[in-house]
Amino acid sequence: MSAAIGYAAKSAKAKLVPFHFERREPGAHDVAIHIEYCGVCHSDVHQVRDDWSNSLYPCVPGHEIVGRVTAVGDKVTQHKVGDLVGVGCMVDSCQHCASCAEGEEQYCENGMLATYNGPFKPDGSNTYGGYSDHMVVTEKFVLRVPTSLGHRLQGVAPLLCAGVTTYSPLKHWKVGPGQKVAVVGLGGLGHVAVKIAVAMGTEVTVITSSLDKEGRARELGAHDVIYSKDPAAMLKHAEKFDFILSTIPVAHDVNPYVELLKRDGHLVLVGALEPLASGTNNMLVASKRRSVAGSFIGSLAETQEVLDFCGKHGITSDVELIDIKNINQAFGDVEKGKVPFRYVIDMATLAAAKK
Amino acid sequence: MSAAIGYAAKSAKAKLVPFHFERREPGAHDVAIHIEYCGVCHSDVHQVRDDWSNSLYPCVPGHEIVGRVTAVGDKVTQHKVGDLVGVGCMVDSCQHCASCAEGEEQYCENGMLATYNGPFKPDGSNTYGGYSDHMVVTEKFVLRVPTSLGHRLQGVAPLLCAGVTTYSPLKHWKVGPGQKVAVVGLGGLGHVAVKIAVAMGTEVTVITSSLDKEGRARELGAHDVIYSKDPAAMLKHAEKFDFILSTIPVAHDVNPYVELLKRDGHLVLVGALEPLASGTNNMLVASKRRSVAGSFIGSLAETQEVLDFCGKHGITSDVELIDIKNINQAFGDVEKGKVPFRYVIDMATLAAAKK
Repeated sequence: MSAAIGYAAKSAKAKLVPFHFERREPGAHDVAIHIEYCGVCHSDVHQVRDDWSNSLYPCVPGHEIVGRVTAVGDKVTQHKVGDLVGVGCMVDSCQHCASCAEGEEQYCENGMLATYNGPFKPDGSNTYGGYSDHMVVTEKFVLRVPTSLGHRLQGVAPLLCAGVTTYSPLKHWKVGPGQKVAVVGLGGLGHVAVKIAVAMGTEVTVITSSLDKEGRARELGAHDVIYSKDPAAMLKHAEKFDFILSTIPVAHDVNPYVELLKRDGHLVLVGALEPLASGTNNMLVASKRRSVAGSFIGSLAETQEVLDFCGKHGITSDVELIDIKNINQAFGDVEKGKVPFRYVIDMATLAAAKK
Repeated sequence: MSAAIGYAAKSAKAKLVPFHFERREPGAHDVAIHIEYCGVCHSDVHQVRDDWSNSLYPCVPGHEIVGRVTAVGDKVTQHKVGDLVGVGCMVDSCQHCASCAEGEEQYCENGMLATYNGPFKPDGSNTYGGYSDHMVVTEKFVLRVPTSLGHRLQGVAPLLCAGVTTYSPLKHWKVGPGQKVAVVGLGGLGHVAVKIAVAMGTEVTVITSSLDKEGRARELGAHDVIYSKDPAAMLKHAEKFDFILSTIPVAHDVNPYVELLKRDGHLVLVGALEPLASGTNNMLVASKRRSVAGSFIGSLAETQEVLDFCGKHGITSDVELIDIKNINQAFGDVEKGKVPFRYVIDMATLAAAKK
């Protein structure tokens, strides 16, 4: 075992504090990674606060991880010491169910192993995430970071969750050039979605409840911006979009967005993992054969794809780098929706906690 | 103009009573039809009761119509006097919008003209449906009844709405042999859906809130039956179905059905044209990339397809023939869910009203 240090919450109401624990020694198929940056995802806050009633403590969050390989097991072929790599939301899956066989590990029917808050099998112990100095991950779940993005690694970290969570549904629903896409919400997920959808050649509209985000939306490449709290402005765009991606991280009423879909259009929710605020109006849905769907992160293959896609198009997340000692204040900002796209922890700041 | 007689409601709270009105003379592209049978659809009750707040009075319902051609205009090429024909939910559409151009007239962007309660353009007058002795319909909206079904015409009538409403989504979502399909509700739509889905080669399960319908479901060809009010029985079938068709005609909670879908499965609602009873749980939806969609009747091409499909497979609706003078009692039975699959009006009984 190797001594590790990170930041953990001991309960749903506790602050994150320095936490000493142990990582396993790398096995034959394992990669050991020195963590350089880790994004602060809204899920981290939900998990620490036990919003999904399934949290294990101590909880070391973090699943937007980039770093450098420090050791590899004998049988590792895809990575070598010194490589820039990433780890996303999963560190293992059963590898034999239908979903795993089809390369959809995020939907593993035996439960994919989450990067944190995922009980190890067979011993049932917890997994600890990327708010830490290093980790050990089985080779298959380690992604390659394109060398073209090596000079802005902090902006790569959020691609491992926010990037693939938005890229995966755009690919799955075959969104492409000439289509009209709306992205609802311009936070961590939303702003990456805009960059990716623009690079895919679609016409992108941002729908936001914050009037002051219009300028930023246009800088990101959005062709248009709709203020969601103005029903008349919304209805002007009725039946306009082929695809709408809702990144709103809390329960909301989807009906105003359903009305903006064309016939056969899809509204896909990736943010709100909970019951919606009100019943979907099936008169709106059926009268244009629309659908309201959801999507959950993305597969390993899609995670590598989005990294490569972003490498090709020069896309990274807009981030504000923070010292890990300020993580509790950062969580508060995330809850208040005050974050400038994505906080990313500079893991070099963890050194202070080692003293 | 030609004198017509039918049954109409004069207001949302009025009973249906005999009603004299006029039909237009057949134009060059028109087909005149002597109506033999007309199905009693749950929509007829909703429309008469003004449940969708858009009813025009007097209201002559009926959009599950079969009869025989009595006259054709000069330019009619697809039908001739004496042919057995059907008319469904539409009698016209704009014919130039994107949906019409793609043969999806039911989603006409300028509003398809409903068989009843559809204002004629340009004069704005109402349309009167199939609870009447004859009608005049533009050729393109008249369907051919397969000769193989000519001996049980009363069972063909419901195929014009219940048939295509269930066939269309099964086709659109590419349901086929080997797939597991569930049909929720075993009324007019549900029992036709079971027959069609079985003929398509799928494994069909009926989900019903009426324990006493199990035997009938199996007679129709269902492989299995689940009692929807038993949460444990429902959960035993979690993640089982590729496709679930909900024919429940009123607002309901879809979450128990969402849980029964496989990864990438679709729940499609064709019955409840209103807001659902509670918010869909996006944790259930996203965690398996499921979708909740709706579908609205079907295109002209699909209506002809379902008639031909049913002709090939010997499928008709199970019906109970009624005298039109008992229509108000029949409406009461529909509202109470007491109907043995489908009431169909024997239009010969309208003769008594002519005296």
